[in-house]
Amino acid sequence: MKKAIFYHAGCPVCVDAEQLILTYLDKSKIDVEVVHFGNDASRIEEAESFGVKSVPALLIDKQVYHINFGASMEDVKNG
Amino acid sequence: MKKAIFYHAGCPVCVDAEQLILTYLDKSKIDVEVVHFGNDASRIEEAESFGVKSVPALLIDKQVYHINFGASMEDVKNG
Repeated sequence: MKKAIFYHAGCPVCVDAEQLILTYLDKSKIDVEVVHFGNDASRIEEAESFGVKSVPALLIDKQVYHINFGASMEDVKNG
Repeated sequence: MKKAIFYHAGCPVCVDAEQLILTYLDKSKIDVEVVHFGNDASRIEEAESFGVKSVPALLIDKQVYHINFGASMEDVKNG
């Protein structure tokens, strides 16, 4: 089973994208972990190391897919 | 069966996002039509009416998800 990580920060754009991901991704092919930076700021550095520039973002197969634009990582870090 | 439309213009970012969509979306829930503006420029106006601002973009449940950034619709129209 492949693993994907959905990074977000609770913004409206993030919540909307999360619904898309959780509803329509094929769970028989991929296991999606949801990381909310508001609850787990320790994952910010990890996300940036993968190339995440803004949220919401989906990491899959080592590729980052920025889905619409909720907030930059700078905004996330500045609370 | 719900229907989604993936709009793109053949750019590398588009092709990469298309692979994500076609590989991981749950085909038991959603039927994805792929529209390449290079092959069907008549769909540009339709896409803009749905709120597509750039490609690649996925339209699903009347919501537009811009996935990364390949080209603006202005770039698409200017060839």
